[in-house]
Amino acid sequence: MRFYDEMLSLTLSDMQASAQRIAADIIATPLLPFLGEAAAEIRLKAECLQPLGSFKIRCGANALAMADGQALQHGVATASAGNFAQGLALAAKRRDIALVVHVPESAPTSKVAAIERFGARVVRHSFSRWWEIMSTRDTGADDGLFIHPVCERSVVLGNSTIGLELARQWPDVDTVVVPIGGGGLASGIALAFRALGRKVSIVGCEVDSFAPLSAALAAGQPVTIERVASFVDGIGSLRVLEEMWPLLRTVIDEVVTVSVDDCAAAVRSLAFNNHIVAEGAGACALAAALSPRFNGKNVAAVISGGNINRDILLDLL
Amino acid sequence: MRFYDEMLSLTLSDMQASAQRIAADIIATPLLPFLGEAAAEIRLKAECLQPLGSFKIRCGANALAMADGQALQHGVATASAGNFAQGLALAAKRRDIALVVHVPESAPTSKVAAIERFGARVVRHSFSRWWEIMSTRDTGADDGLFIHPVCERSVVLGNSTIGLELARQWPDVDTVVVPIGGGGLASGIALAFRALGRKVSIVGCEVDSFAPLSAALAAGQPVTIERVASFVDGIGSLRVLEEMWPLLRTVIDEVVTVSVDDCAAAVRSLAFNNHIVAEGAGACALAAALSPRFNGKNVAAVISGGNINRDILLDLL
Repeated sequence: MRFYDEMLSLTLSDMQASAQRIAADIIATPLLPFLGEAAAEIRLKAECLQPLGSFKIRCGANALAMADGQALQHGVATASAGNFAQGLALAAKRRDIALVVHVPESAPTSKVAAIERFGARVVRHSFSRWWEIMSTRDTGADDGLFIHPVCERSVVLGNSTIGLELARQWPDVDTVVVPIGGGGLASGIALAFRALGRKVSIVGCEVDSFAPLSAALAAGQPVTIERVASFVDGIGSLRVLEEMWPLLRTVIDEVVTVSVDDCAAAVRSLAFNNHIVAEGAGACALAAALSPRFNGKNVAAVISGGNINRDILLDLL
Repeated sequence: MRFYDEMLSLTLSDMQASAQRIAADIIATPLLPFLGEAAAEIRLKAECLQPLGSFKIRCGANALAMADGQALQHGVATASAGNFAQGLALAAKRRDIALVVHVPESAPTSKVAAIERFGARVVRHSFSRWWEIMSTRDTGADDGLFIHPVCERSVVLGNSTIGLELARQWPDVDTVVVPIGGGGLASGIALAFRALGRKVSIVGCEVDSFAPLSAALAAGQPVTIERVASFVDGIGSLRVLEEMWPLLRTVIDEVVTVSVDDCAAAVRSLAFNNHIVAEGAGACALAAALSPRFNGKNVAAVISGGNINRDILLDLL
């Protein structure tokens, strides 16, 4: 319960300090009205417009900015399917810190290439071995300070800055739909609204074929599920991390699952109606926001990223 | 010289009143750092994120909001290749005003379909006949109050609101690159910086194969050029409008031409680096901003719109 307690004790001023710390690294992303047909009032928190195309620049920058200078001397390591590593890699390059990134074989080539472009060293693993690193923080090598992409105070604080912006941009928002990867994004946003004393419904979204949080909620505890590959590669995991589970159960009000086809339609709609490029995980939030259960609500959909492989994008459009 | 005088007498408070008038119709578009390689500091005024995918919603909304109620009773007509008509059509639908839109045969089907979806009646003409309507305001029919898409006080004022936002968003901008269609967009933005007393270089951009303003500047007066079709369909014209010429000569500091291939590369770069979808005319401004002549400058590129045909986009990507 240590991580859980640490998270619930984060204060508004911790979050505001993080926002200041990363202000020069990120953009305060616009909240765009969704321009397709919808029965809810849907607005898009367009994190795909961030430098490096994903919200992860917020946590990567915050993680290094908060780390102790002494601890950084031997470099930094992380385990990430791509977006978080990119954010960390850019922040590390700016500070001249060596970085090792452990990726699953399934990580999209566009993301791996982007990591390497920033000078980070990439180590590939089978998905299950990679997941072991995610769960144990043991990379099997002495490659520096390990920064967890999800269960990390500085990372959740980085994510909380999205919640602060959103709350300011839309005083009447009542529902926030967030894609569930490890759960760090949803947690950070939820904690920000709590810190502000603002009551909103935090809705996690998953792809129905690969939905670890839905499975955990059904079973009352994290359970291991089977990986089903699809173009939606930025979210889903083999099971909810034990450290995250008490937190997610507390701060997430509901989970909605959508089909891969719904995500594909959402990618198309975002490109042709809103003129933004989203990856599958990012579009997932719009797909969920379009569910009839939100009719009449003020729904913010967090479009978490836009790093989609060219061929996949062409195929979807 | 009447139009010229009228334009140069527009005041800051005229512009601010326009901004207030259209605030509910538009979004204050973000100014996004360009994320590709560049020797200048380039930021993108992302008008492609506007409702209807183009800056024209600003002028369409402002034109109807400023028009006399009596004059609107018999409906409204315009001549437009697509984007302006869409903006006007949405504003007209909201106010239940009948609209006739005269389009050239070359207008992209996606734009014509969008106009018709808002209930406007579309009349197609050969490009030369359409250009005659643009030049004379005579549609050959009694189809209501004619609102010119370019040489219209309310339209230029609508465009000026982009300049007001840009000036606020980037105090250190020194160069603003704007695609030249009829010249109304560049004029509005230039006049806003003038009204604010801010010295910036206003750079028009054209496609080298269809560049009426470059031709006029070379000849010292508007000259008729040959239409060369390309995927960059939102800008260019057979000749600079006589009414606009004195104004453009005064407020535009420089014109840069780019190749169709440069525009195509800019569309790709915007999609994959910045995750926004731009049409050729919109991307033209980025292509021009990448010119070595702007190395070291603070360049805002106005990405005017994102309404690109699906097949063309797929082909470019």
